[in-house]
Amino acid sequence: MLKNDAAEQQNLQHALSDISDKLDRVMDELLPNQLPVANKVISLHSREEDHENGAEPEGEGKVIEAMRYSALGGGKRLRPFLTVESARLFGVNPEMAMLTAAALEFVHTYSLVHDDLPAMDNDDFRRGKPSCHKQFGEAAAILAGDALLTYAFEVLSHPRVHADPNVRCELIRSVARAAGVRGMVGGQMMDLDAEHKELTIDEVIRLQRLKTGEMFAVACEAGAILGKAPDPMRARLQRYAHDIGLAFQITDDLLDVEGTRTETGKGVKKDTAAGKATLISVLGVERAREQALTLAQQALNHISVFDARAEKLRALANFVVNRRS
Amino acid sequence: MLKNDAAEQQNLQHALSDISDKLDRVMDELLPNQLPVANKVISLHSREEDHENGAEPEGEGKVIEAMRYSALGGGKRLRPFLTVESARLFGVNPEMAMLTAAALEFVHTYSLVHDDLPAMDNDDFRRGKPSCHKQFGEAAAILAGDALLTYAFEVLSHPRVHADPNVRCELIRSVARAAGVRGMVGGQMMDLDAEHKELTIDEVIRLQRLKTGEMFAVACEAGAILGKAPDPMRARLQRYAHDIGLAFQITDDLLDVEGTRTETGKGVKKDTAAGKATLISVLGVERAREQALTLAQQALNHISVFDARAEKLRALANFVVNRRS
Repeated sequence: MLKNDAAEQQNLQHALSDISDKLDRVMDELLPNQLPVANKVISLHSREEDHENGAEPEGEGKVIEAMRYSALGGGKRLRPFLTVESARLFGVNPEMAMLTAAALEFVHTYSLVHDDLPAMDNDDFRRGKPSCHKQFGEAAAILAGDALLTYAFEVLSHPRVHADPNVRCELIRSVARAAGVRGMVGGQMMDLDAEHKELTIDEVIRLQRLKTGEMFAVACEAGAILGKAPDPMRARLQRYAHDIGLAFQITDDLLDVEGTRTETGKGVKKDTAAGKATLISVLGVERAREQALTLAQQALNHISVFDARAEKLRALANFVVNRRS
Repeated sequence: MLKNDAAEQQNLQHALSDISDKLDRVMDELLPNQLPVANKVISLHSREEDHENGAEPEGEGKVIEAMRYSALGGGKRLRPFLTVESARLFGVNPEMAMLTAAALEFVHTYSLVHDDLPAMDNDDFRRGKPSCHKQFGEAAAILAGDALLTYAFEVLSHPRVHADPNVRCELIRSVARAAGVRGMVGGQMMDLDAEHKELTIDEVIRLQRLKTGEMFAVACEAGAILGKAPDPMRARLQRYAHDIGLAFQITDDLLDVEGTRTETGKGVKKDTAAGKATLISVLGVERAREQALTLAQQALNHISVFDARAEKLRALANFVVNRRS
């Protein structure tokens, strides 16, 4: 049953911020540092001082800085949360789950960096700070996105992610499919083409399924892949994630219509201004809100077979329809 | 010994065009088709007729078309050649070598699509036809590049590439490293930052090593990885490829200075116009040409231990310094 239990939501917030902190440390460790090891010189002043002295990073250093700027210290980290919590259901080593989550977050970050580009959604702000291309220029942003995507696969191929190379190959294939032209990339192109165009409900749902749903689904599925869970369990988690993803997107659109920039950290009513079809524009606010509730309830049903270890995944179903930012 | 043997060079040209044809068929089969399977409807008219009737592809269909436009039917296919010929040294199944070569060519194609973007090198032509963003728009080009890169890893994770998943993971890790911020992407950023700037010889060599050398090296190494060759053999092939890559780049720069657009299929003297440092700008034409010859000779030495199966790799060393386009 869907509910808005304050204690449960507080626990979820703690869990989300805990995962966010741990993920940041893992990503910080994984990401390359600004100076290539071979070129590193002993220095008595810090990187901050370099900046104060006006030393602008160049070449690969600039791309590395742009990668770190975009990946670290921000975001709700919902996808990593899904990976960690689905891995928990199958007793997966938390460190392996976190590395997988970091790789998925690199893919998610790359997609935000490229989506914000002037030729795409043209967003100047992301997570409350200037978007990557505003900070580092377009070329560095394109390359930082490319490098983050590439690095995600390097991480997933590493034995630390899982001792069994078949599991790593399966993670790589699943992530590549979800992120590719039949998934996130295809959804983004549909979204761009959808401006100032009438879409049917089915088309909007398909667009969202590709644009955000597939990555949500693979984030959840990753835990099952790491845990070598049987196919029906994987399928349940995928369906849960698709429902959560769509409910999340509807709430996003509702916040876009109702919200303020302070709450969401980006410009509001952008979608409305761009004339983009959303489930709200095709269903209206009230029916869209009902639809989100139905999806969240469906998501709960999909994971009803799991034990108490699914507690936080259940709390998330409540969160996505009750969130205010 | 370096030589310019007409019969050998003719054999090499046949081998290159043979690999090019086979690769095109493999890539054509691997790449997604324009219509998503789920949406495919029985149709009495062909795709060509759709175009004649003015039906513009949209959404994922547009990205798929841009991927196919950029990947198929063009290019010298040097990297695939290196993979196929290095795989031959270790008796690797040619189909597996060709699939690996196709994945590498997807990575190479993505890099060309992104490098041609207005925010990057701003090239309107590629391989004698309009570059991807001129044909499909910037957004579709960015996304087609993203999708090609992503798809390369999906292909490499597939059991058809190699039965041993450890081999597939090693291919993925090696390709990701070569393509990433410490490889091709880092080199591209250095190249962009190098405009109107004085670089030392060492800096230009490091730039080229990252920008093109690492991908050449992994194309050669891939054959050894597929063949589970011992490390010293891998190292020899890597060194061969780095020397070939740099020699190739110098010849490219020489053609850029001397060539005509008809021969190279792209605008000439672009690098000179952009004030880019090349080995020619730092060494002068004559010393650069000598350097290319030295590198080609070194490349031959690295692979002197291999038997007659290395014949075409030897012919390539002669080709890169004698080519006219």
